[in-house]
Amino acid sequence: MEAFKRAIPIAEALRRGEGYATVRGWVYRKRSLKEKVFVVLRDATGVIQLVFQRDKFKIAEDLNIESALVATGRLVREPRAPGGVELHVEKVEWAYAGEPYPINEDAAAADSEYLLDVRHLWLRSRKMQAVLKIRHTVFEAIHQYFRRSGFYEVQTPMFITAAVEGGATLFKVDYFGQPVYLTQSSQFYLEALIYSLEKVYVIAPSFRAEPSRTRRHLTEFWHAEMEMAWAGMEDAAKVGEEVISYVVEKVLQERAEELSLLGRKTEPLERAKPPFYRVSYDEAVEILRKKGVSISWGDDIGADEERALTLEFDKPLVLYGFPEKLKAFYHRNNPDRPEVTLSFDVLLPEGYGEVIGGGERIYDPVELVEKIKRFGLNPEDYQWYIDLRRYGSVPHAGFGLGVDRLVMWITGADHIRDVVPFPRDVRRTRP
Amino acid sequence: MEAFKRAIPIAEALRRGEGYATVRGWVYRKRSLKEKVFVVLRDATGVIQLVFQRDKFKIAEDLNIESALVATGRLVREPRAPGGVELHVEKVEWAYAGEPYPINEDAAAADSEYLLDVRHLWLRSRKMQAVLKIRHTVFEAIHQYFRRSGFYEVQTPMFITAAVEGGATLFKVDYFGQPVYLTQSSQFYLEALIYSLEKVYVIAPSFRAEPSRTRRHLTEFWHAEMEMAWAGMEDAAKVGEEVISYVVEKVLQERAEELSLLGRKTEPLERAKPPFYRVSYDEAVEILRKKGVSISWGDDIGADEERALTLEFDKPLVLYGFPEKLKAFYHRNNPDRPEVTLSFDVLLPEGYGEVIGGGERIYDPVELVEKIKRFGLNPEDYQWYIDLRRYGSVPHAGFGLGVDRLVMWITGADHIRDVVPFPRDVRRTRP
Ligand SMILES: [Mg+2]
Ligand SMILES: [Mg+2]
Repeated sequence: MEAFKRAIPIAEALRRGEGYATVRGWVYRKRSLKEKVFVVLRDATGVIQLVFQRDKFKIAEDLNIESALVATGRLVREPRAPGGVELHVEKVEWAYAGEPYPINEDAAAADSEYLLDVRHLWLRSRKMQAVLKIRHTVFEAIHQYFRRSGFYEVQTPMFITAAVEGGATLFKVDYFGQPVYLTQSSQFYLEALIYSLEKVYVIAPSFRAEPSRTRRHLTEFWHAEMEMAWAGMEDAAKVGEEVISYVVEKVLQERAEELSLLGRKTEPLERAKPPFYRVSYDEAVEILRKKGVSISWGDDIGADEERALTLEFDKPLVLYGFPEKLKAFYHRNNPDRPEVTLSFDVLLPEGYGEVIGGGERIYDPVELVEKIKRFGLNPEDYQWYIDLRRYGSVPHAGFGLGVDRLVMWITGADHIRDVVPFPRDVRRTRP
Repeated sequence: MEAFKRAIPIAEALRRGEGYATVRGWVYRKRSLKEKVFVVLRDATGVIQLVFQRDKFKIAEDLNIESALVATGRLVREPRAPGGVELHVEKVEWAYAGEPYPINEDAAAADSEYLLDVRHLWLRSRKMQAVLKIRHTVFEAIHQYFRRSGFYEVQTPMFITAAVEGGATLFKVDYFGQPVYLTQSSQFYLEALIYSLEKVYVIAPSFRAEPSRTRRHLTEFWHAEMEMAWAGMEDAAKVGEEVISYVVEKVLQERAEELSLLGRKTEPLERAKPPFYRVSYDEAVEILRKKGVSISWGDDIGADEERALTLEFDKPLVLYGFPEKLKAFYHRNNPDRPEVTLSFDVLLPEGYGEVIGGGERIYDPVELVEKIKRFGLNPEDYQWYIDLRRYGSVPHAGFGLGVDRLVMWITGADHIRDVVPFPRDVRRTRP
């Protein structure tokens, strides 16, 4: 394995531009021209053109797209080569030709189902590589924002017995012969943890048995959730706009190359600085009606309405004050106007819509039990959640952020499955 | 909510030691003495003694353990108070007395099942708070280590169709009427991702339908897994010892107070610096036999044997070269000695045992298919995994680290459920 260790990243070879170097990677493109074979090799950092003398390197003929290779040679500046540098190969130290690669990138781009079937290979594409690097930066930025803001990272269970969002979209697990469910949200557990740590967050999978295939739903998704003691709706909304703008700024700084490779226009991202617009549910209904959308006060603001609404604004907006029946039972009703809740969503612009749902929670146990009953639910099912309010309850608020949706907007993707390494929906659980 | 915002962390109030301050938190202890009521208040940062004039603050009489409170007053140095500072209360700006708290910490400590039943409340204990803070630091350190070492963070699916570790301990999910399973390890997915990003890691839940209750098994646990292209067993083992020592060092630096509160002796942690001991399976069998353990070459090294073995060493050890049949099919056999694999475990000292399992993977598709068959498995079930080797396969290695087990050792806990906020085992799925 000595040759592997000697290899330098391709980006580093391009920087050097001269001297001898060993590189390793996979064949990205290949063409033969008279006595030479030109191979573009990729690794995790970039691509470089290798030049083989055909008569000296029979192996060069045998290389397929995606064959693996470790090669040593002289770096030479060549303006016509990608990155401006070529490696004139003098030694091939390791090679694995393999079989002819089944994916033709250009042809395949047209058939997204095929690309999902071969996702385990399609991850090698430069487009997926760019998306994965952006995801890496997005997750890092979320952790950084929360940790620097005094939040503790916690872990909450995936196996649950009480539904947060309602029972219709729960996955059932056979748990040693008993039914348990997969979590839809860690919120209830975060609420338990604020009495210990005050400000907590978790980044973990959540699950929704979503039977329809939409551009923004998967059956499992990564959920960044937070909860803070001694806080109200507006405090949580501020954290929401701050974390989004922090993430976007970091991606703009560190992933400009990847955004450009994906053809993403960055202006909408650059504008996403706090404060985001604040739009009440009442105002949203008015705006939509003026646009000719048929909606009455009390109706839900679904994907289509969100889309119409966000197209009116040049940066994300905090949509707040939803009518009671549109939001789950745990949202605190506005004491000054009990028909609406202290709830909010953050909607992403350009038609992307909801990325955060949150608000202030009911902290009074009597009010909570009453609302559980008013919603036709059984307080017995929420016993420990109610229990939290019986001993030193405090006002608190939080939210859940769909990380994959945020990545979707940042990358400008059309479909959420395009930004998840191994997406899962009603029809797909492999590879 | 104005009073909430004015409050400063208790740790900050202790630092100031004079002037006026507002603090907020929960009642940790309370005692009355003539005309005064002494209340020890805790928040996420520490505890401070509040002194109430009984005649001025009727509310002080009504406070229960865990009642919530926002109070303003004068900070006074008082050597007999915890932290050396008291707050002489002049104004109570918010209070939520609630009901008498059901947990008596001292009495409860004896009954761990009871404490699991009320885990949603028990998280408020100073002991759980210390454990949670250590977890926070452990997770941060793992991310930091991998990111600084050039690994990309990725997310892998929880819903799977092929077993990594074997079918016996898979949880079955009702997936729109079809069976799918919960992941036991992200390894196969990480292997797909190395062709794109070369060095990848994930920190996510994994699931094992473990029917027995042991001190180191849960049905869901947090798994930190990594995979690297162009690497062998010893490369992966080095990453393993580095990440563990990095985590331990960070906890020693940043969580000394919490370790002390938990009564953890730090010497075993301080010694955990690379290189860890390297012990071959052959040597381990010899050592165990000399200690009188009845074991033959080829037998498994289970929890009891690991315990006996680690007590012979003063820091973690890399146990490597397990016989073929003791490790899963994907482990590469040693080409120089095919009866053993290029596999390793990292065992924690003081009897804690296995925290990492890893090794080099088979990269040749023919060798892989042969071994799958030799293990009595069906290559059809591993089609996309085999596929990875058909196009530019490369030597690679990786491991999985049980994060909760690492926290267990760092905190010196007797049982893994003592270091997980909401532990899940065969008998427990709530709260
Ligand atoms: Mg909505
Ligand atoms: Mg073992």
